[in-house]
Parts: sequence; C-alpha cells; structure tokens
Amino acid sequence: MNERIRIREILAGAPAGREVTVKGWVRTSRVGKGVAFLAVNDGSCLASLQVVAEPGLANYDEVRAIGTGAAVAVRGLVAESPAAGQAVELHAAEVTVIGSADEQYPLQKKRHTFEYLRTIAHLRPRSNTFGAVFRIRSSLAQAVHRFFAERGFLYVHTPIITTSDCEGAGELFRVTTLDPSAPPMADGAVDFSQDFFAAQAGLTVSGQLEGELFAQAFSDIYTFGPTFRAENSNTPRHAAEFWMIEPEMAFADLRDDAALAEDFFRYLCRHVLANCAEDMAFFNEHVDRGLLARVRQVAGSSFAMMEYGEAIEHLKRAAVPFEYPVEWGLDLQTEHERYLTEQVVGGPVFVVNYPREIKAFYMRLNDDGRTVAAMDLLVPKVGEIIGGSQREERCDLLEIRMRESGIAPESLWWYLDSRRWGSTPHAGFGLGFERLIMYLTGMENIRDVIPFPRTPRHAEF
Amino acid sequence: MNERIRIREILAGAPAGREVTVKGWVRTSRVGKGVAFLAVNDGSCLASLQVVAEPGLANYDEVRAIGTGAAVAVRGLVAESPAAGQAVELHAAEVTVIGSADEQYPLQKKRHTFEYLRTIAHLRPRSNTFGAVFRIRSSLAQAVHRFFAERGFLYVHTPIITTSDCEGAGELFRVTTLDPSAPPMADGAVDFSQDFFAAQAGLTVSGQLEGELFAQAFSDIYTFGPTFRAENSNTPRHAAEFWMIEPEMAFADLRDDAALAEDFFRYLCRHVLANCAEDMAFFNEHVDRGLLARVRQVAGSSFAMMEYGEAIEHLKRAAVPFEYPVEWGLDLQTEHERYLTEQVVGGPVFVVNYPREIKAFYMRLNDDGRTVAAMDLLVPKVGEIIGGSQREERCDLLEIRMRESGIAPESLWWYLDSRRWGSTPHAGFGLGFERLIMYLTGMENIRDVIPFPRTPRHAEF
Repeated sequence: MNERIRIREILAGAPAGREVTVKGWVRTSRVGKGVAFLAVNDGSCLASLQVVAEPGLANYDEVRAIGTGAAVAVRGLVAESPAAGQAVELHAAEVTVIGSADEQYPLQKKRHTFEYLRTIAHLRPRSNTFGAVFRIRSSLAQAVHRFFAERGFLYVHTPIITTSDCEGAGELFRVTTLDPSAPPMADGAVDFSQDFFAAQAGLTVSGQLEGELFAQAFSDIYTFGPTFRAENSNTPRHAAEFWMIEPEMAFADLRDDAALAEDFFRYLCRHVLANCAEDMAFFNEHVDRGLLARVRQVAGSSFAMMEYGEAIEHLKRAAVPFEYPVEWGLDLQTEHERYLTEQVVGGPVFVVNYPREIKAFYMRLNDDGRTVAAMDLLVPKVGEIIGGSQREERCDLLEIRMRESGIAPESLWWYLDSRRWGSTPHAGFGLGFERLIMYLTGMENIRDVIPFPRTPRHAEF
Repeated sequence: MNERIRIREILAGAPAGREVTVKGWVRTSRVGKGVAFLAVNDGSCLASLQVVAEPGLANYDEVRAIGTGAAVAVRGLVAESPAAGQAVELHAAEVTVIGSADEQYPLQKKRHTFEYLRTIAHLRPRSNTFGAVFRIRSSLAQAVHRFFAERGFLYVHTPIITTSDCEGAGELFRVTTLDPSAPPMADGAVDFSQDFFAAQAGLTVSGQLEGELFAQAFSDIYTFGPTFRAENSNTPRHAAEFWMIEPEMAFADLRDDAALAEDFFRYLCRHVLANCAEDMAFFNEHVDRGLLARVRQVAGSSFAMMEYGEAIEHLKRAAVPFEYPVEWGLDLQTEHERYLTEQVVGGPVFVVNYPREIKAFYMRLNDDGRTVAAMDLLVPKVGEIIGGSQREERCDLLEIRMRESGIAPESLWWYLDSRRWGSTPHAGFGLGFERLIMYLTGMENIRDVIPFPRTPRHAEF
C-alpha cells in the first residue's frame, strides 16, 4: 500500500477521485444490504472517516465482521458523500485488518461515565471526549512554547528534585533511596546525610525561585514543567502531580506582569478558537453549553484591574450572601472571586495589592507597609486562574519577610544572593496548566484532563 | 525612560542615530581619560553592548564607580563604533544604577573553572559560557516542539510518579509521605498500602510505555519531560535527573523509526547552526575546536545503516585494540561505537537488529528468533546518541518476553491490553536532551548543561 495520509487531511478537503491509504481504528461498523460501513479514526481529528466497503472486496466476509476497536488499513478513492454531516467518504479498494478486536473491547459504542473511563485510562484516549481533551492539551502546550519563543523568553528547566521548600509549606513528597524498613539513624532521627542527595529531598512545588535566578541573567524566562503537592485532598480540582507555567521578567513591575498575563491568556483563548475549532465545538455541544461564548468573550475583552481594598468594598456591599466572611485582611474565596468577575466586572479582572499577611514572603512590600504587590487574575466561572507578583528585590526587606514567615535565610542563601549583586525589580506569575485546560474545555474534573492522573491512593498505569 | 529594547536587537542592526533604552548587567567597566566604558549584557545574546559615558552626565562620578555585576538602565544614541569587533556602541545620555554590585561579587572578570562555577550555579548563567549553554538549551527545546508540531505529533505528558518500573531495572527513587523514622509495618515489612498512593511509588525512568498507549489512539505522539535514575555513578555523563524526548508512531516499523530519528537529528543540527550562530561560534572557539565542522557534517550527511552482525565483523577485523571484548551476543561499548561511526563509516550510522538477550523486553522479535528490531544511532565523538526500537505488538510473544525478563505480566496488564484490541506495528526512540546539548556545544560534563544538576550527594539550589 502507498504512504498513509492522515484522516484530518482528507476531511479538510481531499478532492474526490484521489487515491489514498488511511490507517486507524474502527470506531463503529455497520453492515447494510450489499455494503459495509466502517467509521475509521486515527486520532488526528475528532471526526471519523466513513469507509464504504462493497462485496467485490476479496476479503469482504472478513471486512463485514470487523469489530469496534480493530486497527485497519484502507486504500481507496475519496468520493463525495451522500450522507449528512460529512463532505467526503472513502470507497475501499482494499481493506487490511492490522489488529483485530473482539467484543471484550471495553470501549463499545455505548456511552460510558467519566468515572468508569478513569479506570481504563490506557484506553480512554480512543474515545471522542478524551481524544478531544488530549488534542487540546497538546495544542495548548505547543502554543505556550510558541508564545514565549516569539517574545524572546528563555525556556528554563528548573529542578524537580529539591532540598528547599519554596512556599514554606509542608506538602512535599519525599524522594529517597534509603531502605524504608531500616533507615540509618543518628541521634534518634533518620540520618539523611546517608541518603542519595546527602540531605532530605523532595519534589518541587514551584520552579519560581530558580526561575528568578535565571531572569537575573536572561531578563525574560519561563518554566513549563511538572510540580507536586502531597496534599490529601480528594476534590475535582486537586492532583498530586500537575504541570505549571511560570514566566519571570527582570526590570518589570506589577503592571508589566499583568500586561504579560493578559496577553498570554488571551493568546491561548484565541489559539484554541482558531486551531482547535472542531474539538471546541464538541465540548460546547456535549460538555459545557456556554463554553464558546465564554472563551470568545475573554479572547476579545481587555481585562479590568481592581485594588484588593476596592474588591473588599464591593463584596461588603453585595446583595448576595457569602458562605465565607468578608473582611480586609482575609483571603478571597472562590465565591468572592466569582462574584467580582461575574457580577461586578462582567469579565476578567486583576485584583492587586493584597494584605502582606496572607501572601508569600517573596512578594514585594508596597510603600503603604501593609500590602504586597500581588495580583490574581479572576475569570468567570472559575475565579482565580493566574497568580503572580512583583518580587521583593531589596535584600534587607526580603530577609525580614523570610524571618516573619519562619524561613531561615541561610537555607535560601542563593536566593538572597540574587538580591546582593545587580538586583532588579522583577515580576512573574504562575498558571496551572490543568486549570487552563479545564477552563478551555469545560471539563470539570482535573482527573479528566491529565493523561494518567495521580491523586491520593491512585498512581496506576 | 522609554521602553527597553533588547541588546540582541541593537547588535543585529539598529541604525546609528536611533535613541534607545537598554537594561542589563555590567560585565566589565573601564575608565579612560574623560570617558567611561561599560560592557552591558542582558542575556538576549552573547555579546555585550559597549556603552560610552562622558563626564557631561549628571552622575558621572557614580557611573565611573559602577562595578562588575551591577544592573543598569542606559538611555542613549546608537552610534557606529570605532572599536574593533563591534559595529555599534551606545552613547549614553542617561545612566541609572538599578542594582549595585561590590567587589565581593563572585563573577569578577578573571576566568573561573567549571568546577568552581558549579558551586555558584545560581550566578553562573551570568557568565559567557553558561549564558551560551542555556540559550542553546532553550532554543533547542523550543525547536523540539516545533519539529513535532509541524509533523502533527501529539505532545503527551506522561506521569512522573509511577508505580511501575519500565525497564525492570531497580534504579528508582522512592516517592513517599510516610514518616521515615516510624513507617507503618505489616508482616515485618513497610506497609505501603498506607503510603500516599497506597502502593510503593517512584520516579519514572521513561515515558515510553505510557507513550505507546497514546500512540494507539493518536498515531503519532511524543513526550518531552524529566526522567530519573537513582544510580550512584559519578561520571561526566550521568545525572540523577535529566530530560528525555520520546516519540512513538503507530503503523510504523524500524525503517520508519530510523527515518524519523534521522530527520529529527539533522533538523536539530541545522537549527543550532542557523539560529544560535553566535553561541555556536563561541563554543567552537573556546570549548571544542572541531565543533562546527562536526555539526555541519552531520547536518548535511545522510545516515548509514548497518546490521549488528555486520558491526561485529567490522570490529573483529579492526586493526586497533579494544579494551572490551567483541563477540556476537555482547553489547557494544563506546569505544566500539566510536570506531564504527568514526573509522568504518565516517559519519552517523544506525546499527540495527541486536541480539534479543541484551535488549529490553518490549523490543520486537525478528523472524530469525535471535535478534530484536532495535536501533542505535551512533555519531562521531560520542557514540550512541539515540536508542529506539520497533515494539513487540504481538500479545503472546510480548508476554513470553516479559516472563523471560522477570516481569510479571499482571503488573503491566494495561500495557498488554494495548496489544489485545486494535494492536498495530509501532516504533519509537529516546533521545537524552542533555546528551544532545553536550553534542551540540562540545561541553563535556552533564553538570554544565543542566541549570541546577542533581547528582549523588548534590541537590543544592
């Protein structure tokens, strides 16, 4: 058989009469009077190609019996289709069964629940919904790199295994090669000096601190890699392993940071609308009816900005009841965020300058002494989607904030060093990649946008 | 001051007379008679911009005293330079010190050893060599994504935390949240059912097996992510954490695999020659005199192919002595690989069809029953740089090979499932990203091409 051509290419407009060979998997088969129809999908797009097979085929009996899930190669002629919903079909001259499938194949035609499909995560990419999810995930990831490459940002691989804990939080997975049943002890405690890294090591929760070091050499950088939380939360929005995008810019303040975040987020919205139209239409029809309207609105709007103090005033005046209290000095909850973006602004909004007590040590202290240069981007339906800040570039103030947060400055000597020589105002933000995909597909469980999700008690496949 | 412009842009040809503002770090400063020179670098390219400051500046005394490492902003006029080695310089109208640097700054003008610079990995990106290394690393990573995006390959994030061990090797880091000093015990062993994932978990050594599952849905996929080896080897070529690129194609055999590897490798060679010319010239001059010639040769040549058996014959006939024995059935060592690519072929060569005993269980058994459809790409100076294979797509044969390799088929039930329904001939390969960077820069220690390397006893920063 001649070279295979992708089904996406045929459906995008191969001329009738052209001879092609396609290879893919049978999604459905149907036998009529003197004709068999196979819907063949090769993952290059959502739609399957209708293959029409007639009794003249040497192996017509075999073709009639092909089951859902079988891998086939088909050579034939592209023809205009009389059927609704497809411009062309393929009239088979030759059909070869490459890999058969029997009725035990778990992905038969009937609809399955997302819960069930998680138990067959090795097969669910062969379904419509998960095909669409992972095509969009891939396309978005490639778009992330293109966005930053076009703007001259340097991509840096920050370390996954770390001996420092960025947020001062305790939710680190430990990484070790010590014998778990008989670790070496010293003074009644495990002697980590004998562990692989000669220290207690864990999985990173963020590449930000190392990213900052690189911004102090290359001006504009970004990370895009896996991050981890050993948090025992079984919610639809938490996973133990997820990917994060973290740009960082030297010679930049909070306004520059917000401008980048706005450009970036709109770029990604426009990207899926323009490049993933078929999959987006599928989600709009089957998963979230308001999806396209919402994404189009964000893609076209310019984002508002609001002080945290102003946000609190709006929330206090709100006519709706909130579950969580509203008070200057308290953090905003999702219900508050959604009220601000949906009811007050009617579109994406940056809330900026939060009380220092509720934010991380590395955020820059404002001149008022009580707020820091933090920003959260809130969008309709989900609330916060991007969090960022201008970083504290003044060595003395940073050290004070570290002590206040219970972090020993010696443990981050290298981070302080970056403020000791050639320090610059700088700023960055983080975007959780899975949250982005959920936002742009309408999928509501993080387990359904990660190829093989890791959550408490689950690390199968 | 007006918007900053990147120094790369100015040196690439800003017209004399244009007013610009640059921001960056002072690499050297020199005070002459009635004039001060600052070499300013912003990481956008290797070269620094020469800033000429004259006593007319309001803060000339401050400017005269600016030390190496300080961050500055300079507004001025682009002018043709009378000095050798630079087309333009910047005549300062205004110089602002953003972040000072004193003489304690570790990166003073003098040359430092790579060993010393590893101890200040947080500052070394501000040096010429490491600036060039990490610009090339970034540019290559972005090129990897572009290569596969252009060819319609789906990017998949395979899991980092895993409960299966792809190679059947034992060199896994354990990932745990159990109390290290008092883990729960059951029947005299640690009870991992009480660990975070309710099982013994570790860091992945390869995304291949999960990548194969995705190829069976999307036809052509690739992974690009971190992988890990808890190997206690202190060599210049081994790190505990490194990045790997692993494409996988359904409906593909070993020839297709080699064709993709050849396209890919040449694409990356041509990429750095065309897009990283300044940094490549630097490595050719300061690190490895033969670099450019070697990379150009590979970029322009078509790769040879040789059977493993043929390779053994060549080695047996070789007039040079080898340290390791040569015999059909034994694996090739670097000395053998280099002899084949440098002496026998005089260029890149694929060695294919290795004895089954020395290769992994998932490689496809050839009809001769004694070899498997494996391929290694050998290149001058390093030997093997890419390893790949056609995978065993026949469920029964795969199960036999698993048992032979001491892997319980039940533990990889999902992998076997991918051969149970709609199985296809498929093939893929792996390229260690750091090995690639070493090859394309001439840098000889893997610790010097990773931002913050992780090796035995080292996970600083």
